[in-house]
Amino acid sequence: MPSKSRIVLLLLLLGIVFVLAPLSDAGKAREARRRVSKSSLDLDLNDTLVYLWPLPKNFSQGDQTLTVDPDLTLRLRGARGNSLIVSEAFERYKDLVFRSQVVLRGVSFDVSTLTVVVESDDDELQFGVDESYAIYVAGGDSTSIIGQAIIEANTIYGALRGLETFSQLCIFNYESKRVEIYKAPWYIKDEPRFAFRGLLLDTSRHFLPISTIKQVIDSMSYAKLNVLHWHIIDEEAFPLEVPSYPDLWKGSYSKWERYTVEDAKDIVNFAKKRGIHVMAEIDVPGHAESWGNGYPDLFPSSNCTEPLDVTKNFTFEVISGILSDMRKIFPFDSFHLGGDEVHTDCWNSTPHIKLWLEDRNMTTKAAYQYFVLKAQEIALAHNWIPVNWEETFHSFKEKLSPQTVVHNWYSSGVCPEVVANGFRCIFSNQGAWYLNWVNTPWEDFYTSEPWEGIDDPAQQQLVIGGEVCMWDEFGDTSDLQQTIWPRAAAAAERLWGSRYINDTESLNTTVLPRLQYFRCLLNHRGIAAAPVTNKEARTAPVGPGSCFAQ
Amino acid sequence: MPSKSRIVLLLLLLGIVFVLAPLSDAGKAREARRRVSKSSLDLDLNDTLVYLWPLPKNFSQGDQTLTVDPDLTLRLRGARGNSLIVSEAFERYKDLVFRSQVVLRGVSFDVSTLTVVVESDDDELQFGVDESYAIYVAGGDSTSIIGQAIIEANTIYGALRGLETFSQLCIFNYESKRVEIYKAPWYIKDEPRFAFRGLLLDTSRHFLPISTIKQVIDSMSYAKLNVLHWHIIDEEAFPLEVPSYPDLWKGSYSKWERYTVEDAKDIVNFAKKRGIHVMAEIDVPGHAESWGNGYPDLFPSSNCTEPLDVTKNFTFEVISGILSDMRKIFPFDSFHLGGDEVHTDCWNSTPHIKLWLEDRNMTTKAAYQYFVLKAQEIALAHNWIPVNWEETFHSFKEKLSPQTVVHNWYSSGVCPEVVANGFRCIFSNQGAWYLNWVNTPWEDFYTSEPWEGIDDPAQQQLVIGGEVCMWDEFGDTSDLQQTIWPRAAAAAERLWGSRYINDTESLNTTVLPRLQYFRCLLNHRGIAAAPVTNKEARTAPVGPGSCFAQ
Repeated sequence: MPSKSRIVLLLLLLGIVFVLAPLSDAGKAREARRRVSKSSLDLDLNDTLVYLWPLPKNFSQGDQTLTVDPDLTLRLRGARGNSLIVSEAFERYKDLVFRSQVVLRGVSFDVSTLTVVVESDDDELQFGVDESYAIYVAGGDSTSIIGQAIIEANTIYGALRGLETFSQLCIFNYESKRVEIYKAPWYIKDEPRFAFRGLLLDTSRHFLPISTIKQVIDSMSYAKLNVLHWHIIDEEAFPLEVPSYPDLWKGSYSKWERYTVEDAKDIVNFAKKRGIHVMAEIDVPGHAESWGNGYPDLFPSSNCTEPLDVTKNFTFEVISGILSDMRKIFPFDSFHLGGDEVHTDCWNSTPHIKLWLEDRNMTTKAAYQYFVLKAQEIALAHNWIPVNWEETFHSFKEKLSPQTVVHNWYSSGVCPEVVANGFRCIFSNQGAWYLNWVNTPWEDFYTSEPWEGIDDPAQQQLVIGGEVCMWDEFGDTSDLQQTIWPRAAAAAERLWGSRYINDTESLNTTVLPRLQYFRCLLNHRGIAAAPVTNKEARTAPVGPGSCFAQ
Repeated sequence: MPSKSRIVLLLLLLGIVFVLAPLSDAGKAREARRRVSKSSLDLDLNDTLVYLWPLPKNFSQGDQTLTVDPDLTLRLRGARGNSLIVSEAFERYKDLVFRSQVVLRGVSFDVSTLTVVVESDDDELQFGVDESYAIYVAGGDSTSIIGQAIIEANTIYGALRGLETFSQLCIFNYESKRVEIYKAPWYIKDEPRFAFRGLLLDTSRHFLPISTIKQVIDSMSYAKLNVLHWHIIDEEAFPLEVPSYPDLWKGSYSKWERYTVEDAKDIVNFAKKRGIHVMAEIDVPGHAESWGNGYPDLFPSSNCTEPLDVTKNFTFEVISGILSDMRKIFPFDSFHLGGDEVHTDCWNSTPHIKLWLEDRNMTTKAAYQYFVLKAQEIALAHNWIPVNWEETFHSFKEKLSPQTVVHNWYSSGVCPEVVANGFRCIFSNQGAWYLNWVNTPWEDFYTSEPWEGIDDPAQQQLVIGGEVCMWDEFGDTSDLQQTIWPRAAAAAERLWGSRYINDTESLNTTVLPRLQYFRCLLNHRGIAAAPVTNKEARTAPVGPGSCFAQ
C-alpha cells in the first residue's frame, strides 16, 4: 500500500479513536489523583528486604540503630595511608549523604569516624583489580578501640566499592533529623562475580557534552558498574580530535560538538577516580562513514561511502594513527575495534575495489576478514587486547587473534559458543540488555544470565562480564539518564551478584521494592532515573505518586 | 460506548495500523541516518544573529576576537568591594565556562581580569531590586587602564545578571583550544522589562529531591528567570515540615519524601545566591486534601475530604500556624494563597457545614469568599502581600484585599480586566505558558505577551510579570528539566525583553537558531533541555543529528 494512503488511513483510524475515547490530559490527571488518594500514604520499607544495591555477596545485620555524625571524619590506614582517590571519594560520599540535609549539630553521635584500611595503595587501575571489601559497623554497645565503622579492602578500588555500600547504609531520619544506620551491627563481605560490568555510551548519533558523560560515570559508580565502553565514532559523526589526522573531526556535527584530546583524558581521569575503566571503540570497517568528511579517500567512492576502502594503505595508516594517538589517552588493556554490520556492497560495486578483490581472489567476505585482522594486528602492536563484535566470530572465528574478546550483541546463546571455542566473551544480548530498546522491561535486564548455557567453570571464566548498551539514535542529554536508569541497575546487580540471586523467588516481592528504593536514591543524588514500573522506558510517570511506588 | 469495548476497538485499530505500517525502531534509525548523512556537517552560527539569551536590551558589537585567560581573575569594586555573592557566582561561572575544557596554559591572553563594579553592596533581595547592568569588553587595541572586561551594576543582583551574560560571550574554540570572545568590542546595557519572571514547581504530585530543585534554580539563573513559585502542597501530598502542627507532613507520600524547615531555608538561600526569589504557596481551601492525613478534623467529613472545613476555628488556626512557621523561612514580600478550583460540594452535603451556612445565610460561594478573605487577613498580618489564583478575582473582586496580586492561569484576556480594576496581575495563561501541556510549542511560549490587550502604561505597570508553570502530575525528577526546557527559555526572553522583540520577523530565522544554541548551552551546563523542534515536549530526539539542528 503506498505510504500516503497508509498515512491517511492511520489518521482516519486515530480520528475515530480520539472521538470515541476522550481522555484529556486533565481528565487523566483527575483519574490519577483519584487513584492516589485511595492509596496508602504510609509507605515503609519491607523489613525482610535489604535495601542495598547491588546486594552484597555476604552480610549479616542486627537490630540496632546508630546515629552518624555529619562531621564524619575519615581515618585512612594502609600501606601508604594517604590515597587521594579514597579521600576524595569519601568527601564526595559525605556530600551525597549529608548534602541536602542541614543536620542539627551539637549532639553526640554513635559513628564519628570511618576507618578505611587499604592493604595496597597501588593506584593503578588494572582490569581485574581486586574490588573486594569488607564493612564492619559495630553495635552501639561496642567497646572497639578502632571505632564503630570500618571498611577493609585489598586495593583502593575495593575501598571505593565499600564506600558506596557504606553510603547506602546511611539514611536520613526526618523525624530525628539525623543520619542513621539501621540494623547494626553490620558485617558485609563483598566482591563482584564479573570483572567487566559495562555500560556503552554512543557519542556519534548525538554528541554528549562532557558534563553528561561525567554524570553517567558518577551514576555508574552508584551501581558499581566499572567499564565505560565509549563508542566514540560512527556513521553520523566523528567528534574526537586525532592529532595524527587533524581533519578527521571535520566529521563532527559542528565545530563545538567535539572532544579534544584533553577532554578525553579528563574523562579517563574522572572515571579512574571512581574505579571505572574506559574502553574506547573505533568501529571498522563499517559504521565509519563520518571518517570521509575529512579524508574522502577513505570512501570507496564519492557516492558509495562505506565501509572504509579496504584496498588502500592510507586506510590502515589512518587507523594506525588513530590507535597511536589513543594509546596515549586510554590505558585500559583492551581496545574495541567494532567490526559489526559490515555491508560490503560498495566494495563490490566500486571498480578499483572490485579489481583489487579479483587480483587477490578474494570474496568481499574474505576482504572483511582481511580488514578486521589487519586492524587487530595494529591494536596488538600497541599492546592492546582486541575486542570485536560477534559477527567477526561467526564469520571467521578460526582466523581471529586468539586474544580476541568477542562482544555478543545480536542474540542470545552466543557466549556459550564463543567460550566453547576458547575465546573470551562479553554479554550484551540486545534482546535483554540494549537500553535503547525501550520496551525491554527491567525484569528482562534483571533475569538475563551471562553464564546461561555454560556450566563448565573453566568456560564460565571466559565470560569476562557483560554490558548494557545505550545507543543514542534517539538519545541525547535530554533523555539519556532517563533511558539508562533504572534498567541498567537491574543488569548491574546481575553482574555483581551471584548467579542464583533471587532466581527462585518472586521478583515483585523481593527485587522490585529494592529497585524502586535504589531508583529513588538515584533521584536523590541528582540522577534522572525513570519510574521502575513504567511499561516503556523514558516515559513520564503515570500520574501523581510516591517515588517508591512508581 | 462502554470502556471495555472502546479498548478492544482501539487495540483492533492499532493492530491494523501496525500491520500496515511496519516502521520498526531500527528501521526508523536507518531512516534517520539516511536523512542525516545528507545534511550539512558544516553548521555554523548565523552572522546576523546575536547568540545571547535572553537578548539584551541594548548592545553594540565589533568584529574582533579576544582570547580569555582560563585563570581569569575577579576584581571587585564597589561600596564594600567584597560581596561574597558576586565572588561565589564568579567562581561558578568560571567553572562553567572553562570546566569541560582542559585549556592549554602558558600563553598570553587578551582578557585576564574581569572587573565588576557594584554601586551598592546591599545584599538584601527585595522584589523589584535593580537588576540592570552594563558590560564593556574593550577591543584588543584598547589601552584602558581598567582592563578589557568590565561589568557595572547598581546592585549585586544586577552584577549576577551581567555575569550570566558575560559567561555567554565566552566560547571555547576547539581549533585554538582557547576560550574566546567574538565581535569585540562589546557594549551592553541591559535591564528586564518585568520584575517578576517566574517558574512554578509542584512538589506535591511528585516529591522533588532538593538536588532537583537546586538544579532547576541553577537553570533558571541561566535564562535570568528570578522567581521560583514553590507550590509546596496539594491534594496528593503534604511534604513540608510545619513545627506548629507537626502531624501535617504525615500527609507526605513517605517518611523520606519530605522537606525539613532546614531544607526549605537551604533552598531559599541557594536561590538568593543566584538572585532568585522564592514565593511559597499554600493553596486553600481547595487542593488541600493532604492536610487531613495528620489532622482529620480539617476534612468536612471522613468521606468528603475537600475543601478544608470552613466552619472550624481549627482550620484557620492551622493556616495561621503554617504561615507563622513559613514567615521564618520565606522572606519574599508576597505569599501565594491559592484559591483555585474550589469544588464546594462537600460543604453543601456535610450536615454541620450546611447548618453553619444556613445560620449565616451564606451560599457556598459566599463561604468560599469568606475563606479566602480570612486567609488573606492572616497573610497580611504577617506583612505579606497575598497572591491568589484568578477565580478569586472573578468571584468576588470587590471584596479582595486591594493589595492582592491576581494570578491569571485559566485563559487569555484576564490581566487586562484585572489591571483595569486596579489589581496587580501575574500572567500564566495556561493556553500558552503551562509547561505540563506538552503540546504547546515553543513559539506559543515565545509570542504570548503579558501586556496583550493593555495599552495604558499605568495599567501595564500593574502587570508585575509572568510565570511558566511546571505542574507535575506527570513530571518527576526523571523528566522535569526535559519538560521545562527549552520552552521556559522562550517565555524568559519574552519576560526579560522588549514587547516588540522579534515581533515582525520570522521566528524560524531570527529566534529558532538562537534558541537551539541556548538549548545546547543548557545541555553543556548539565541541564537536560529537550530538542527545540520536537512537536511534543519531553520526547526523544527524532533521530541522530546535531544539537544545534534539533
